[in-house]
Amino acid sequence: MFREKIKVLDCTIRDGGLINDHDFDLRFVRAVYKALAEAGVDYMEIGYKNSKKLFDPKKFGKWKFCDDDDIRKVIEGIESKTKISVMVDVDRVDMDDICLKKDSPVDMVRVATYIKDVDKAIHLENNFAVKGYETAVNIMAISKTLDNELTECLYQLEQESKAKIIYIVDSFGSLYQETTEFLIKKAKHILKTKEVGIHAHNNQQLAFANSIEAIIHDANYVDSTIYGMGRAAGNCPTELLLGFLKNPKYDIRPVLDVISKEFIPLREKMEWGYIIPHAITGILDEHPRTAIALRESDKKEDYREFWESLVGEDDGE
Amino acid sequence: MFREKIKVLDCTIRDGGLINDHDFDLRFVRAVYKALAEAGVDYMEIGYKNSKKLFDPKKFGKWKFCDDDDIRKVIEGIESKTKISVMVDVDRVDMDDICLKKDSPVDMVRVATYIKDVDKAIHLENNFAVKGYETAVNIMAISKTLDNELTECLYQLEQESKAKIIYIVDSFGSLYQETTEFLIKKAKHILKTKEVGIHAHNNQQLAFANSIEAIIHDANYVDSTIYGMGRAAGNCPTELLLGFLKNPKYDIRPVLDVISKEFIPLREKMEWGYIIPHAITGILDEHPRTAIALRESDKKEDYREFWESLVGEDDGE
Repeated sequence: MFREKIKVLDCTIRDGGLINDHDFDLRFVRAVYKALAEAGVDYMEIGYKNSKKLFDPKKFGKWKFCDDDDIRKVIEGIESKTKISVMVDVDRVDMDDICLKKDSPVDMVRVATYIKDVDKAIHLENNFAVKGYETAVNIMAISKTLDNELTECLYQLEQESKAKIIYIVDSFGSLYQETTEFLIKKAKHILKTKEVGIHAHNNQQLAFANSIEAIIHDANYVDSTIYGMGRAAGNCPTELLLGFLKNPKYDIRPVLDVISKEFIPLREKMEWGYIIPHAITGILDEHPRTAIALRESDKKEDYREFWESLVGEDDGE
Repeated sequence: MFREKIKVLDCTIRDGGLINDHDFDLRFVRAVYKALAEAGVDYMEIGYKNSKKLFDPKKFGKWKFCDDDDIRKVIEGIESKTKISVMVDVDRVDMDDICLKKDSPVDMVRVATYIKDVDKAIHLENNFAVKGYETAVNIMAISKTLDNELTECLYQLEQESKAKIIYIVDSFGSLYQETTEFLIKKAKHILKTKEVGIHAHNNQQLAFANSIEAIIHDANYVDSTIYGMGRAAGNCPTELLLGFLKNPKYDIRPVLDVISKEFIPLREKMEWGYIIPHAITGILDEHPRTAIALRESDKKEDYREFWESLVGEDDGE
């Protein structure tokens, strides 16, 4: 028995791009798009729309900017019902670069925001909405959010935002099922006119479990990535999510294929997944940056020292 | 806030031994025991007590037999409150080999059984109980068990068995949280005089999540393995479980150390963890043997073909 409203948004290229400065070649991105299209995945998020005034295009891959013409090169010639999503960060996008939806291959724009910037996020998201895009707001670092501030934020989104989906983002991979249940129930209670989504990180091997937990409590939008690829520990694996969902429109086999052919070799060159320093930042509810730095150092396997450095930082008051 | 009754049983050497015919050297087993002792883990399961009449000691490592003298070599000279557990299978142990608890370094004996063999399991377990051992019964392949048969089995265990703990074993790594909740609640309801435990497999990255779910619903005995090492996809990682449990008697740091020093190099030689064929048998609720065979073949990365071979087997009625 399946819930038809559940939509899967695969953000392999977008979240995976945080590992390699968004520098995937066109062939690879097309292979991912083709697999997702054949699998019946609802959305593919391909990267960020960042202003080239703020970031030098020579220093980053294409998917940090997601020019419409580059997106067209990904999708052309591939039969698909999969919609295209891009992410934008507050203060990093130039609205002069953004055309109307009717002239763009992009279907959805998701605004990622910390709770302190929610006013800016709503303003930005509404600008995309009036241009005709489906819009969403992703509330990052939810595990560090005080309950009264989250309540206010959710009411404000319900009243002022045109976004059709509000995502709870477990940026640090620190949530357990009970807190996921609490947060999703809270969001569903306040957001009467919107859908609720979940974006989980896999530091503690709980990204899939927390996504199931969110689904149980009526979140209808779920983020995933193929073979769990994403920054640091990565995300809820698309293949597991499709295995769990019973909607016959999904077909796991093209995803299995692209893992065999593309992701197994890629994993030799790029690092993500269950890696102890990332588990440690998840357990301690910390930003992954310290673990990422450790993995790039010559102390990459010195786990005890890393644990003690994080626990020791907290010197009172 | 912690629940003092929760006990962690680390079965790294026992379940990991299913990968390498129980052939770990003494130095490695002592390193694991020392780490678990320093971490305050309640039990360490070290292997199986199998009859040497049934299995040739030349073909298997020591931990398929767990002679008391071999166990003594592991624990001697290491300060510890960690109890020693061994597992026995129905029809594979010779009770003539078993001395009284007072003369043995073994504290607990766990009888692993399929539900059809529960009468034999109770008989065997009670034989250990009268010799003075703590005893437990592990009900394997729980996901293939019909509800009425499980009900009968649990009532029989409650009435006839001296075991202090009954474990629910997700042998195929196919359980989701909702079924885990159902099974643990059911077991707790019937087993009024016993504790309930969980042994989870990690095919779908849900071993830790299902262990948390079991704890939420009052299972007090939880199995885990260091760095998740165990047959096929492995188990609930001890380090994550200790990170979750709040009992101050546990110290995660010795486990982090032994992962750095022993398990990272070992993982280069032995395979376990999140591997797509194991995910597939988990999704399809199948025994891991087909995936293990695939991984030993030259088709180890042919995931789609493997999926189709399993799905295609089911030809009606």
